[in-house]
Amino acid sequence: MKRLLDSRSLRALARGCAVLGAGGGGDPYLALLQALQATEDFGPVPLVDLDELPGDSLIMPCGGIGAPTVSIEKIENGDEGARLRDHLEFATGRKVAALMAAEIGGGNGLLPVAWAAQMGLPLVDADGMGRAFPEVPQVTMHLAGIPASPAIMTDERGNVVVFQTISGHWMERLERAAADEFGGAASSTEFTLTVAQARGATVRDSVSMAIRIGEAVINAGTSPVDALIAAVDGHRLITGKIIDVERRTTSGFARGSVVIEGLGADSGRLVRLELQNENLVALEQGRVLASVPDLISVLDSETAEAIMTERIAYGQRVTVIAFGCDPVWRTELGIAVTGPRSFGYDFDYVPVEDLAHAED
Amino acid sequence: MKRLLDSRSLRALARGCAVLGAGGGGDPYLALLQALQATEDFGPVPLVDLDELPGDSLIMPCGGIGAPTVSIEKIENGDEGARLRDHLEFATGRKVAALMAAEIGGGNGLLPVAWAAQMGLPLVDADGMGRAFPEVPQVTMHLAGIPASPAIMTDERGNVVVFQTISGHWMERLERAAADEFGGAASSTEFTLTVAQARGATVRDSVSMAIRIGEAVINAGTSPVDALIAAVDGHRLITGKIIDVERRTTSGFARGSVVIEGLGADSGRLVRLELQNENLVALEQGRVLASVPDLISVLDSETAEAIMTERIAYGQRVTVIAFGCDPVWRTELGIAVTGPRSFGYDFDYVPVEDLAHAED
Repeated sequence: MKRLLDSRSLRALARGCAVLGAGGGGDPYLALLQALQATEDFGPVPLVDLDELPGDSLIMPCGGIGAPTVSIEKIENGDEGARLRDHLEFATGRKVAALMAAEIGGGNGLLPVAWAAQMGLPLVDADGMGRAFPEVPQVTMHLAGIPASPAIMTDERGNVVVFQTISGHWMERLERAAADEFGGAASSTEFTLTVAQARGATVRDSVSMAIRIGEAVINAGTSPVDALIAAVDGHRLITGKIIDVERRTTSGFARGSVVIEGLGADSGRLVRLELQNENLVALEQGRVLASVPDLISVLDSETAEAIMTERIAYGQRVTVIAFGCDPVWRTELGIAVTGPRSFGYDFDYVPVEDLAHAED
Repeated sequence: MKRLLDSRSLRALARGCAVLGAGGGGDPYLALLQALQATEDFGPVPLVDLDELPGDSLIMPCGGIGAPTVSIEKIENGDEGARLRDHLEFATGRKVAALMAAEIGGGNGLLPVAWAAQMGLPLVDADGMGRAFPEVPQVTMHLAGIPASPAIMTDERGNVVVFQTISGHWMERLERAAADEFGGAASSTEFTLTVAQARGATVRDSVSMAIRIGEAVINAGTSPVDALIAAVDGHRLITGKIIDVERRTTSGFARGSVVIEGLGADSGRLVRLELQNENLVALEQGRVLASVPDLISVLDSETAEAIMTERIAYGQRVTVIAFGCDPVWRTELGIAVTGPRSFGYDFDYVPVEDLAHAED
């Protein structure tokens, strides 16, 4: 066991997950409340390394699916995780040994902690993205050739849907349609895998990384934004004020754009973020400042608290940062699955550090 | 065994199913071709009475789901039935002993014959409607309190979705969303039940009835429409010409309306049919001539061939008939589930024979 996820580490984890969400992954505050309550009721959750578990034991990657704008109003019932586990065990004929966040970003980095506490299962120190992405096949397991099926989805009412699809593309289509029918958000598990598979098919140590990022901010003293930028090796894109937000919840996603007007040293600048659950690209006068798969996060300029896309509002004083994604997303296949072209943009991915240097 | 469903009886069955479809249930011609091919390849299908089978053996009600306008262009792969059976057996842990048409109306009365031939299983002489209805819970099994879950849906590509819902309403919502995502049509099984349950929860002898109706038309000689009206104890609503068709495929249904202008003795009359996959109501100057759950069928005035809602076209010479549904639909619960108010109409159900007498 690497550590026990107690209330102190969960608070740091929540701050780190918010930053790694790149705007998405769901509200970390609601998920933190669930994780705190569950660990109070059932005890802290062991965070384990994949090397500590038997290679043939089964990992359940899990979390919420849908539009984060919906998730902040449509709250879980609390028993979704156990229901996912029960149906996954039936579908696979095997016992689930540990849970894993499908994505470490946003509330989805914390929800599996709440579920693991209830079930008395450990959480593995890994996830399927090292951040949050909007679509089901945008996980490292998909890059590694692990099938998305069988996937299980459930809602707060107790409905359950099991998906066996011929591709990740069809999993995304069918799960999105079901999540939409459920009202825009649901809970799910996809890409079930063994510990042996997970060792080479996940972003390792990402829970620990999120906790470290959170602790860096909590212990920062007077300059939390600077401390955070140092912790993630990030680049400051702009400091300013939100002057425009356009957001719509459609087809199971929150889509839209945000415009930040520079203040102080950035006075006169305008940066536009485009989003699909997550912040996808940052643009300035048509120039790309950063793009998926790199992470773009909007921080409260005072507290360095990351503001998720569904909470962005006119007038907020923010600092937008960008930082490099896990190297797996910078491979040819990784870029094909999560790069700008996969979201319909007509430009090639350039790593954020190269874009930042080009500017200097 | 009551009889073997060979090519001769299948042709009669197809004509009868078309009439019992009340406009819906999918194209009987395409399903007939599938059933003829399958029985040629694998031999004729035994039609069995529910009393011939052991009470604890499992029945799979099955058929197509979605918009018939789509089904005539988006053809089955052929292995859908076997895939439904395999996943249903896994979900229930039991062997399927026989197939049953979920609805005898339209192509859905024939599709299970094709699947039964391929699997070497018998077809039971019963169905869940005694006609066709558009929505999943509109079956006699629902009235009898049998749960819709587990339901299985599959498409021609090989995708499979398993549904465990808290109600028939949620089954309808989730299956419709999935069928829509599949392109508007799919294959499915719901309301699995034992033979003992089926004896009191289905419309018995409906396959035989459909064959009898078909034979009456085939053997009619010069007046097939009259022979058909006699065979179903039906009422002629109007004889005329289609002068207007408004049809749209939306949310997994074909919806719209059809206007028939009277010819000959009916000259000067206009009758309007409103449809949701099936013909729901027949109206004349705001007066209801017939409505669900009674059956309204549009026949070719020459041949008495029933014309499904997706094939209705301007200029067709037609005779519209209506006849009484199975008595189970005339109970309080039956009317609540399939009566005019269940489709959003603001009037009470009156049996077609009472409406016809009122007119006299």
